[in-house]
Amino acid sequence: MTHAVIMAGGIGSRFWPKSRRARPKQFLQVFGEQTLIQNTVARLQGLIPPERCFVVTHERYVEQTRDQLPALPAENILAEPISRNTAPCITYAAVKLLAQDPDATMVVLPADHVIPNVRQFHEVLRVAIEKAREPGTIVTIGITPTHPATGYGYIQFEGSLDPSDPVPRAYPVRTFAEKPDQETAERFIDSGDFLWNSGMFIWRADTILDQVRAHLPAAYDAFRSVQDALGTDREPEAVAEAFQKSPATSIDYGVMEHADHVYVVPGSFGWNDVGDWRAVYDLSDKDDHGNVLRGNAIVHDASRCLVHAEDRLVALIGIHDVIVVDTDDAVLICNRDNTQQVRNIVNYLNSHQLTQFT
Amino acid sequence: MTHAVIMAGGIGSRFWPKSRRARPKQFLQVFGEQTLIQNTVARLQGLIPPERCFVVTHERYVEQTRDQLPALPAENILAEPISRNTAPCITYAAVKLLAQDPDATMVVLPADHVIPNVRQFHEVLRVAIEKAREPGTIVTIGITPTHPATGYGYIQFEGSLDPSDPVPRAYPVRTFAEKPDQETAERFIDSGDFLWNSGMFIWRADTILDQVRAHLPAAYDAFRSVQDALGTDREPEAVAEAFQKSPATSIDYGVMEHADHVYVVPGSFGWNDVGDWRAVYDLSDKDDHGNVLRGNAIVHDASRCLVHAEDRLVALIGIHDVIVVDTDDAVLICNRDNTQQVRNIVNYLNSHQLTQFT
Repeated sequence: MTHAVIMAGGIGSRFWPKSRRARPKQFLQVFGEQTLIQNTVARLQGLIPPERCFVVTHERYVEQTRDQLPALPAENILAEPISRNTAPCITYAAVKLLAQDPDATMVVLPADHVIPNVRQFHEVLRVAIEKAREPGTIVTIGITPTHPATGYGYIQFEGSLDPSDPVPRAYPVRTFAEKPDQETAERFIDSGDFLWNSGMFIWRADTILDQVRAHLPAAYDAFRSVQDALGTDREPEAVAEAFQKSPATSIDYGVMEHADHVYVVPGSFGWNDVGDWRAVYDLSDKDDHGNVLRGNAIVHDASRCLVHAEDRLVALIGIHDVIVVDTDDAVLICNRDNTQQVRNIVNYLNSHQLTQFT
Repeated sequence: MTHAVIMAGGIGSRFWPKSRRARPKQFLQVFGEQTLIQNTVARLQGLIPPERCFVVTHERYVEQTRDQLPALPAENILAEPISRNTAPCITYAAVKLLAQDPDATMVVLPADHVIPNVRQFHEVLRVAIEKAREPGTIVTIGITPTHPATGYGYIQFEGSLDPSDPVPRAYPVRTFAEKPDQETAERFIDSGDFLWNSGMFIWRADTILDQVRAHLPAAYDAFRSVQDALGTDREPEAVAEAFQKSPATSIDYGVMEHADHVYVVPGSFGWNDVGDWRAVYDLSDKDDHGNVLRGNAIVHDASRCLVHAEDRLVALIGIHDVIVVDTDDAVLICNRDNTQQVRNIVNYLNSHQLTQFT
């Protein structure tokens, strides 16, 4: 059967001051009524039911994950005792799923992305799942790039896209590329055979475990003992030990780049990884002055601004191209072109004994 | 004897969100440790002692006036039952002072101005007080203009300034002029015989009452009955009635423009009426990036900004020429060139049932 494994361990410090250590981006209402992780589960409706959705998150977020996703069985929330990048967390999920379902196929999804075109997303996932049912096969989702972005990794595939073909297809992957510089990104786009790496992977649980054994044997060995402890009192301790022993590496770097039989299914369903407040501005509906006003905001001669307020009143006069995010104890006022630097503020706060604000 | 009468009834809505109906500008710490009204009393030290300082303010501000000025005898805080501009409030103060001291001279001062050069201010006031001791004489303080301001009234005097004369002098006033347009203001400055009207007046209490009788007989009659009620249980009622009956007019418009024997003493002691947040920025010490940061503020690539924060954290990234004023329930983010429009926000709030923020 097909299971979703939603990775929700990140902190997303570029969403400060809304995102905090205690409440990361994926648990925030950045758009509309639901949080990003709630949207991630909701958009699987019709493809993977909640009882087959799993979330891997840091143990400090287990409770709010359960609160936000009451439709998921409590045991589907897997706790990471420490953050060790994606390889250990995916290995743990694979071990867990395989014990329940020897035929399990995993759809690994980040918890904090936006995908407006759900119908097309399902079509792409169906093709990817079908392909991933073949033992030994690794499938990724690649996003048809819209511009030479330097903030994403890229996937190069063999063959060429046929824009007139309405049915998604799986293409063999030639190579994975790290985030490029501007010049390289432009070359990637011009070549026509590069896609953005969406961080979505599909594979059989036994396939990914075989690959981990082959390319990350230390991680595989670490999680061997978890297999024996599953369902017993020793499970938490065994998991903690496995995370400690496992190398802190990404599944991309640790496995995908070395694996054979890797495929990519291209899609273009309006995907956005909502990396910073600028992305929230870009993805939101605007008023006639290009403003996005949420909460208690009053503007007088303001344009192209995003205001994310709550109960407190935010008043703008003669302000343009600025993002304002107001919370109980902190307010961010950021030029729309500087949203990547929000993490500098968080770093500053952390290094100056101001962690009450982070 | 010489008494100070500090007029503190204004609301100062251009200082929103710090200034509120419940806490107007004069009661705010806009600079340094003391509030504007505390500074107004403090700068009289050596000239007029606290026990001879009187404050006229709206009755809703009597308590915080007493709290902020504990050195003043409680009975020196005179309550206006309703705001009726300066003529009734000055008439009331004159009646009150005359009953205590038939020889009283009044130095009438706004509560919310800034005067950096106190030594020079005292020199000017001493000359003005000396002149005002002559019965029937009205004296004003004029500020040597530094630029053709359109936000102030002007006073034209007879004669010409001698910049080499170190001793202040009283000049006969030719005329009072309302706030001019730009062209007129430039003509005023070029003429050399116009000064800014500082709103500071000096006269004997009996002199101003004579002038009120001559030019505002309704106000004079209204306060006649207060004279008889002073010190009795009937005083509050009589005062309330007098304010009701008195025309709501300024002492400038109602008396000064019609009076004879009016003199002006020019001064240039760095006076500023601190009309808006821009003035606070201009008058404050700046750091190397031209920022004025007060309270819990962090800036990253910000310049020429004023941040007035309290306990909440205010973070600026890539922001220039902006004024940020943060309070418990509201935050203002205003272009440095738009600070006059802050009152539009207050008007909007008042007309949209949002008076909890005003």
